[in-house]
Amino acid sequence: MSEAEPIGPGTAPEERTWKLTLAYDGTDFHGWQVQPGKPTIQGELQAALGRITGESPLPQGSGRTDAGVHALAQVASFPLTAPIPPENLQRALNRTLPAAIRVLEARIVGDGAFHARHSAVAKTYEYRIFRSEICSPFLARFVFPCPWPMEFAALEESACFFVGEHDFSSFAANDPDLAARTASFESETAQLTSAVRSIFSSAWERRETAEGELWVYRVRGNGFLHHMVRNLVGTMLDAGRGLLRAEEMTRILAARSRPAAGPTAPARGLFLHSVEYRQQD
Amino acid sequence: MSEAEPIGPGTAPEERTWKLTLAYDGTDFHGWQVQPGKPTIQGELQAALGRITGESPLPQGSGRTDAGVHALAQVASFPLTAPIPPENLQRALNRTLPAAIRVLEARIVGDGAFHARHSAVAKTYEYRIFRSEICSPFLARFVFPCPWPMEFAALEESACFFVGEHDFSSFAANDPDLAARTASFESETAQLTSAVRSIFSSAWERRETAEGELWVYRVRGNGFLHHMVRNLVGTMLDAGRGLLRAEEMTRILAARSRPAAGPTAPARGLFLHSVEYRQQD
Repeated sequence: MSEAEPIGPGTAPEERTWKLTLAYDGTDFHGWQVQPGKPTIQGELQAALGRITGESPLPQGSGRTDAGVHALAQVASFPLTAPIPPENLQRALNRTLPAAIRVLEARIVGDGAFHARHSAVAKTYEYRIFRSEICSPFLARFVFPCPWPMEFAALEESACFFVGEHDFSSFAANDPDLAARTASFESETAQLTSAVRSIFSSAWERRETAEGELWVYRVRGNGFLHHMVRNLVGTMLDAGRGLLRAEEMTRILAARSRPAAGPTAPARGLFLHSVEYRQQD
Repeated sequence: MSEAEPIGPGTAPEERTWKLTLAYDGTDFHGWQVQPGKPTIQGELQAALGRITGESPLPQGSGRTDAGVHALAQVASFPLTAPIPPENLQRALNRTLPAAIRVLEARIVGDGAFHARHSAVAKTYEYRIFRSEICSPFLARFVFPCPWPMEFAALEESACFFVGEHDFSSFAANDPDLAARTASFESETAQLTSAVRSIFSSAWERRETAEGELWVYRVRGNGFLHHMVRNLVGTMLDAGRGLLRAEEMTRILAARSRPAAGPTAPARGLFLHSVEYRQQD
């Protein structure tokens, strides 16, 4: 149903599926997921939709992000009957939401089957570490400061071992059960209780900024377990410091046991970079 | 007295004057100046010094910054008897202070007469506006978003009218009396109750960032009245939008009356850029 089509008397307004692309500074939120009495991205978005349209659908994200994790382009979907043009909803949301959350794009998706989580085919995360001695206060919320001696080459080498299809149990959060560390974070498909994921690319790059040098890890895959990127980074940083050899990543993967890997890198360096869908979405 | 010189029994430890250079994200602080029960930059610094050295001198800033105003290089001075090497104090402060405040440099200044405010000979401020339609959440704390149509040339022209010695009464905060809007913010000299200041340079530049285009105003002078930079910017932005002609800056200066000028630009776009001292400091 096109927007121009009039809704006649007695015709129930048709529900349409919306797709939003969002950027956010996660520092002051208790993660994506709604929690009573705590500010969350999902909760702020639901409240803003309610204020603007009178409808309060719970927006579904492409995945949860934890407290303190940021997004350059998170995707959310929800149904709405209000016949509001996309650019108007985007503008109204950006006026209503806190400045730490911005709607980069708002679209009505033709295919009613679209779901931000179930329809995702790939996701990319970025992790940023700050290399200079004194971490700029203007970057402090968005990087993990690592001023100690570290070999960039060791990080580069380590990252290569994750490309391909692997069981990432060693890098999954120690949540009570395997289902918990997969199910609610990504598609409810055959992957449900498996820790096998395909990583399409995994690499580090150096990035110069006005505030100092960043080392940035970017990883793209078909899905990620809870804490997986932060655990991969924490383990690679151990290799960068010489506590592990890059080749040991193979052994750590094979162990399928969380204690085999390194520590969890802090949330503040992590960004959900982008989410990919089939072309028609 | 050099650090290596031993302090004999019965010799009172000598007090030395310290000079710190600080960067801070002012968003979550109630400005520079200590206020009971509220987080301030001066208060955090005093508390950190106390925890590290057992002495709690009140650090004197080159000037106050208001709530939400940032600093790229604020300067503070204070006396300390503890014989701690500068690099150790800097490291200890950066471990103790919140990540939003960083000590960029710590020095013992030979001349006991050094005072961060009284000894300053020039200060530079920067004001950053964000020009793209959607303001990045990663810059939101550090810019004033101005997505509306605006003439860069009108800003450039307006800025020129402030160079030189002028009475800036039209651009001073409507504080109860003139003394209040000058005395506590800068040197307690002949300037005390005068609103005359010398501006050495005043110009706008465009700056491309990963997040979008910034228009940055930089102004250097021998002193600034309370809210002066924010009022200059608010007035120039009126010229940028075509509400005023650039030439009217002359009339506004001559009026010596706050209502003659434009609105006060928000604190979050303002940075104390640097403070200059005579060469020996």
